[in-house]
Amino acid sequence: MDRSDVVAELEKLARDRDSRDELAELRNRFTIPDGVSYLDGNSLGPPCRTTSAALTELVDRQWAPALIEAWERHDWWSAPRRVGDRIGRVLGAAEGQVVVGESTSVQIFNALTTGCRLAAGREVVLVDADHFPTDLYLSRSVTRLLGLRPLRVPMGDAVGALDEHGDEVAVVFCSAVDFRTGELADIPGVTEAAHRRGALVLWDLSHAAGLVPLELDTWQVDLAVGCTYKFLNGGPGAPAFLYVSHRHQDSADPVLTGWHGHRAPFGMDPEYQPAEGIDRFRIGTPQVLSMLALEHALAVFDEVTTVRLWEKCGELADFFRHCFAQLCGDLDLTIVTPADPARRGGHITVHAPEAARRWKALAERGVLGDLRNPDMLRFGLSPLVVRFSDVVRAVTELADISRTGAHLDDRFGGSGLMG
Amino acid sequence: MDRSDVVAELEKLARDRDSRDELAELRNRFTIPDGVSYLDGNSLGPPCRTTSAALTELVDRQWAPALIEAWERHDWWSAPRRVGDRIGRVLGAAEGQVVVGESTSVQIFNALTTGCRLAAGREVVLVDADHFPTDLYLSRSVTRLLGLRPLRVPMGDAVGALDEHGDEVAVVFCSAVDFRTGELADIPGVTEAAHRRGALVLWDLSHAAGLVPLELDTWQVDLAVGCTYKFLNGGPGAPAFLYVSHRHQDSADPVLTGWHGHRAPFGMDPEYQPAEGIDRFRIGTPQVLSMLALEHALAVFDEVTTVRLWEKCGELADFFRHCFAQLCGDLDLTIVTPADPARRGGHITVHAPEAARRWKALAERGVLGDLRNPDMLRFGLSPLVVRFSDVVRAVTELADISRTGAHLDDRFGGSGLMG
Repeated sequence: MDRSDVVAELEKLARDRDSRDELAELRNRFTIPDGVSYLDGNSLGPPCRTTSAALTELVDRQWAPALIEAWERHDWWSAPRRVGDRIGRVLGAAEGQVVVGESTSVQIFNALTTGCRLAAGREVVLVDADHFPTDLYLSRSVTRLLGLRPLRVPMGDAVGALDEHGDEVAVVFCSAVDFRTGELADIPGVTEAAHRRGALVLWDLSHAAGLVPLELDTWQVDLAVGCTYKFLNGGPGAPAFLYVSHRHQDSADPVLTGWHGHRAPFGMDPEYQPAEGIDRFRIGTPQVLSMLALEHALAVFDEVTTVRLWEKCGELADFFRHCFAQLCGDLDLTIVTPADPARRGGHITVHAPEAARRWKALAERGVLGDLRNPDMLRFGLSPLVVRFSDVVRAVTELADISRTGAHLDDRFGGSGLMG
Repeated sequence: MDRSDVVAELEKLARDRDSRDELAELRNRFTIPDGVSYLDGNSLGPPCRTTSAALTELVDRQWAPALIEAWERHDWWSAPRRVGDRIGRVLGAAEGQVVVGESTSVQIFNALTTGCRLAAGREVVLVDADHFPTDLYLSRSVTRLLGLRPLRVPMGDAVGALDEHGDEVAVVFCSAVDFRTGELADIPGVTEAAHRRGALVLWDLSHAAGLVPLELDTWQVDLAVGCTYKFLNGGPGAPAFLYVSHRHQDSADPVLTGWHGHRAPFGMDPEYQPAEGIDRFRIGTPQVLSMLALEHALAVFDEVTTVRLWEKCGELADFFRHCFAQLCGDLDLTIVTPADPARRGGHITVHAPEAARRWKALAERGVLGDLRNPDMLRFGLSPLVVRFSDVVRAVTELADISRTGAHLDDRFGGSGLMG
């Protein structure tokens, strides 16, 4: 078969899979521009069709008529906890353990300082060497601030490092999914290994929440954080979540003692008295517009389980690999994401020289992927918005660009925010 | 004259003042429900009439079509700095010194830790004893974390305390306007006294920004923070601002080293390299919906100076006192806010036993004021939204309720978020 026949066959296969996909209906909840294959829902999920109407309702029917009274009348006050409980359901967390607000970076600081204080007397923070940069920067800052020692190890060596340094380790801080390679960590295994040595775990779930079936309570995870603008589709910079297990809440001693975490916030007590439960981890006034847009986006998770989303994500990944093997085998491209479904997350990363140029050339052809300079292309497989036909299109265009050298054209050489 | 004649005369005076008020036209930019006198813009400003349309534009014409590319195409990336510069103009700050994002509580932590590190070797943080609670809680937390000593003194004693302890003081941390009494601090005087002793100043401008004519650069203020949902009308929980003087930016060593503050955020460097300038003080991904609603609300400040806003605010305050003297002189009510225009901020506080009941009774009559338990009513005089007729109405209703004991009715006895 020549290449066009191969492509035609893959496209037929994709159409067939799409037509049988019972999640396809949910895709209509979101707006994706016609002609765009969106494989970057792992960076920023798309809006719901109804998001702008929900914001209009919030501004014109809550804020405008009720003004200050809206905090109580429309229960904005409880939003960090209420939205937290909703996210808790996709994390495998019983109520009262998740709170939402601030940026992921701030919640990392909040969680890590809290964890280190809970494990006072231990001097090492074991940090995933391949963590997203903000996690690395903040773990460096926190250890310096508290007089502790950071120890960076590749995620795969975490259990071995615990065997060696376990008694000194306060907190093990890892990413559930490697932002570069898409590799999925062994969350229950690392958690159990940490607990065996008396350490706590803090998981960054940014690339897992809303996709990977998580069981934080069952796995006895101590602390977790994550962003909500990727697979949870909460909107640009949507507020982050923090999970603190019931086991630790009432002995925790947070550093970020904002007034929303006070036992009686409107008592205007000059001394801080921490609230009971997860409210202790509230900080300042939540950004209500962003918070309630997130709440609106979470409604879709009442209609589908992460088990089903994860299953489709795996099928998309297998199909990506199948297309890639057929179309890219002879090109200067390599998939770096593990093939084993148990070891991969929600995106497939392709090693490609001059990745920025290929990423721009793909975008010009309507395939929005993601770039990690200098040589990685990421293709996010958010199962709510990606179709099998998007996958075959992405791989076909990537192969064509790479084969023809289309990306070497001058117009793909400029620099921008990312590349 | 009997009381109804007095009221009629005050109402006539108010109508006359309102009809000659050239800021009245700007009030139409905002939505205030018919029949409501809103004297709580010092807690939460009202939305602009066009805010919901601006959000629809953002969601449907930026996020939906551009998806991830919107960060660059619509310059969301620069928003924290761009919106910061816009706020800088009402603070008397030249460009490149203000950044917006996170909650006020987080920015207090950010600013105070930064200030203490800039003043390393000094052991005392002089803290306004009458600060808003979150300022008190976070100054306690920061001093504990850094091994420093907090010294709480009433704002009026700050200069005296500097004379006594000046050489030990790292940072003087005060509120520009006392949230309870509405008293305005001597910002240039305290700043100068601090500098004379080698200390830095950090001002919380939450109750001043967008109202009091500020000259942070001229006064050589070092650091400042503030919320944007009061006189700046940014929306519920709108992101806070941080001002860091040019003088300190490049020697600052922030604790909250999020990836947005990195010199090359998309380089994905495993080591933190701080950005030059105000970008160093960015933390995590900003909540774009809330951030751009704030930006939209700031447009009104292109059309009016804080000098003019402050002038009208003073006229409203004088008129409040005049009405109060006429109608409340024989009642169990006392104004605690200074009469001197140079010593008061944007709200007038009335001492009133069982304040919560009176506050609820006022709200039932369409006068939305504010409550600070157990015995303070606050009446915010946001000059963009408050009319002279609102002032006379508020005082008339307060007098009537207090005189008749209407607030003693059972229906005002329930408890809610605040009272």
